[in-house]
Amino acid sequence: MPVDAQAAIDLLKELRALTADEHGAQRLAWSPTWLKARAWFQSKLSELPIEHHLDAAGNSWTTLEGESQKALILGSHLDSVPNGGWLDGCLGVIAAYAVLRRIAEEYSGKPPVTVRLVDWADEEGARFGRSLFGSSAFAGTHTIEQDRARTDASGATLEAALAACGVSIDAIGNAGVERKNAAAYLELHIEQGPVLESMGLPLAAVLGTKGVERHAITFLGQEAHSGSTPMAARHDALAAAAKLALEIRPIAMRHPHAVCTVGSVKTFPGIVTAVVGRCEATLDQRDLDADVLATMYREAQEKSRQFAEEEGCTVEWSRIWNIAPEPFHPELITQCEEAIVETAGRSHRMPSGPLHDAAEVSRAGIPTVMMFVQSLHGISHNKIEDTSEDHLRLAIAAFDKLASKTIEWMRAL
Amino acid sequence: MPVDAQAAIDLLKELRALTADEHGAQRLAWSPTWLKARAWFQSKLSELPIEHHLDAAGNSWTTLEGESQKALILGSHLDSVPNGGWLDGCLGVIAAYAVLRRIAEEYSGKPPVTVRLVDWADEEGARFGRSLFGSSAFAGTHTIEQDRARTDASGATLEAALAACGVSIDAIGNAGVERKNAAAYLELHIEQGPVLESMGLPLAAVLGTKGVERHAITFLGQEAHSGSTPMAARHDALAAAAKLALEIRPIAMRHPHAVCTVGSVKTFPGIVTAVVGRCEATLDQRDLDADVLATMYREAQEKSRQFAEEEGCTVEWSRIWNIAPEPFHPELITQCEEAIVETAGRSHRMPSGPLHDAAEVSRAGIPTVMMFVQSLHGISHNKIEDTSEDHLRLAIAAFDKLASKTIEWMRAL
Repeated sequence: MPVDAQAAIDLLKELRALTADEHGAQRLAWSPTWLKARAWFQSKLSELPIEHHLDAAGNSWTTLEGESQKALILGSHLDSVPNGGWLDGCLGVIAAYAVLRRIAEEYSGKPPVTVRLVDWADEEGARFGRSLFGSSAFAGTHTIEQDRARTDASGATLEAALAACGVSIDAIGNAGVERKNAAAYLELHIEQGPVLESMGLPLAAVLGTKGVERHAITFLGQEAHSGSTPMAARHDALAAAAKLALEIRPIAMRHPHAVCTVGSVKTFPGIVTAVVGRCEATLDQRDLDADVLATMYREAQEKSRQFAEEEGCTVEWSRIWNIAPEPFHPELITQCEEAIVETAGRSHRMPSGPLHDAAEVSRAGIPTVMMFVQSLHGISHNKIEDTSEDHLRLAIAAFDKLASKTIEWMRAL
Repeated sequence: MPVDAQAAIDLLKELRALTADEHGAQRLAWSPTWLKARAWFQSKLSELPIEHHLDAAGNSWTTLEGESQKALILGSHLDSVPNGGWLDGCLGVIAAYAVLRRIAEEYSGKPPVTVRLVDWADEEGARFGRSLFGSSAFAGTHTIEQDRARTDASGATLEAALAACGVSIDAIGNAGVERKNAAAYLELHIEQGPVLESMGLPLAAVLGTKGVERHAITFLGQEAHSGSTPMAARHDALAAAAKLALEIRPIAMRHPHAVCTVGSVKTFPGIVTAVVGRCEATLDQRDLDADVLATMYREAQEKSRQFAEEEGCTVEWSRIWNIAPEPFHPELITQCEEAIVETAGRSHRMPSGPLHDAAEVSRAGIPTVMMFVQSLHGISHNKIEDTSEDHLRLAIAAFDKLASKTIEWMRAL
């Protein structure tokens, strides 16, 4: 019995019509539009023999009871960034719905294992700066004390926004009860990058989410008059930062999937007539391999000190944030690749640069894999985010095949 | 008869006590403190047989009539930046006073040529962004229509500030009448840079003021997600700008006195998780030789285009401001050098990176030279600006000797 990919695509368009304006999708977590999207989605499930509830962190769980209590979880998130695209997150939820429906029909409402669909709460963190909110509560990596202090741009607290949706911030850890019987987690997502498009491939098996080292780097030199200070007498903080902005590229390119980015540079006093006395830069480094990440971090630090010395400056580092890499389950990666090859002929293996709820699920010890479908122009978090319908059909079919393979794998455990 | 250098230094300290607060000198042009400084200064001249008046642009002229109408002009400016130093500008005015007094006494009030002391109005342009205001009116290079629109940070107009000091903006060009009989112009100033201190020398003959090319440069690449965009797929506008920020250094260092400065870099969107899509930089290039300046400008443009292409970006240039180099008078430079050698044993020749009123006087065709005295730590426009008293004494003595030499030179013309 085939999954109905076209019905899923039609639902994605229906959701877009319901929750997007001329600037893009507006399903900001905890907002009325997000609640509307969730209510709409639940209405589509009503005819199935399912149980539904929200957990203590606001994650939405739909369960099709199987012969075994062991649960296959399929999920993603309905929430979007402001002015977002029509596929980020909701493709995974709607594809999971299509697969759940296919399984319910194929097994007349009683599959061999339990199948659960989860719509994670506030994956994006777009309003309060706390991404993976619901999945981290599920995984037990939640951070209530830091999160209690979070506010949006208007000063409203995350705690109040949660309360308005019936979620008590002190109780979110109780979402961990949903881990019971969880045996595998699968998530379909758009790539949000240019790799698959550049290779002419529709689908990839995701190896895991990259770890991140994120730092603020400040070079201190000596502010000086641009007219009266000879070149050789300068302590130019920008020159040291410029060298680092270029050096991070060979540091990254020694490793196949690694990336390093200087995303922000600020110059002080930052006027046309003064040599830069202080330069503040940010560095974001990512790789799937913790050793590679540590090596890149160490190399960037060493080079920054070398460049500071060359320019008569000093340098200070301050960590903004970091997270460890999260490799997905080797056997599920192989199954994902097989499902893709059987559906689309060719597959690719790649790590995910962006974080996903799947990383939190995997961190909780649940065998996990993701599947990526090509993003046109590599663009996401934007209303022009898109994927061809041919590729969406292949993605939903391959994801359905992966679900079947995973059920077989669970039964054999 | 020797010039009384110590008396001049004592006057500088008296002026500091009168017009500085705990943040530094506050003789902002057109302000009550500036008017107070000017009144104090004029009181010191009262016993001399001089004529005094303000010209149409607010420049303050003190004339000691000589046997010849041909005039030697000695000058600088009493105005300062906010929180300025105790020497910038006023050293030149007080030194000119000491020389005028020595000449008046030596020739019993009737020197062989007329000697004039000028205190230029608003050299700094600190409040309205229009530097060299008074000297440009004198030189006929004034810009009434642009200046009429100028306002300070509070929205007050330059026109109103002038009017409050009795200066009509429409009439400032009448200051040009002061050029009559002008035969030479001499100005003593602190170096405001680190060159003389690094060479262990007190004094330098100034070759002229450097020309300036000042541009805004915008690199356009492609904003992209720092996690999902492979290094090889990036169009990183910061990388192109970083290459240029480093390349301007060899471009400058091919020439002995040239300087190039990237003083400001701005990144957009400028967030830690995005490859820089747009990078705005400023470039300030200076040299005394117009051909060198043109070469450096062309080379920076060419390199910026090369770097943009290498990074898959585009680049646009927009001129902020430029001014031609102004070389000083060769014979006066030689006399200045001789006066320094006779006073301090060794001299140095160097161009001025900062602009000075002397550049406007020279542009009007009047033989001009400046003398620089060492600045401690190369720092100016700051309350810690300083010069050793030994060097101040040498400077005033050498400047007095230069005045004598110039009077002889004028008589021989």
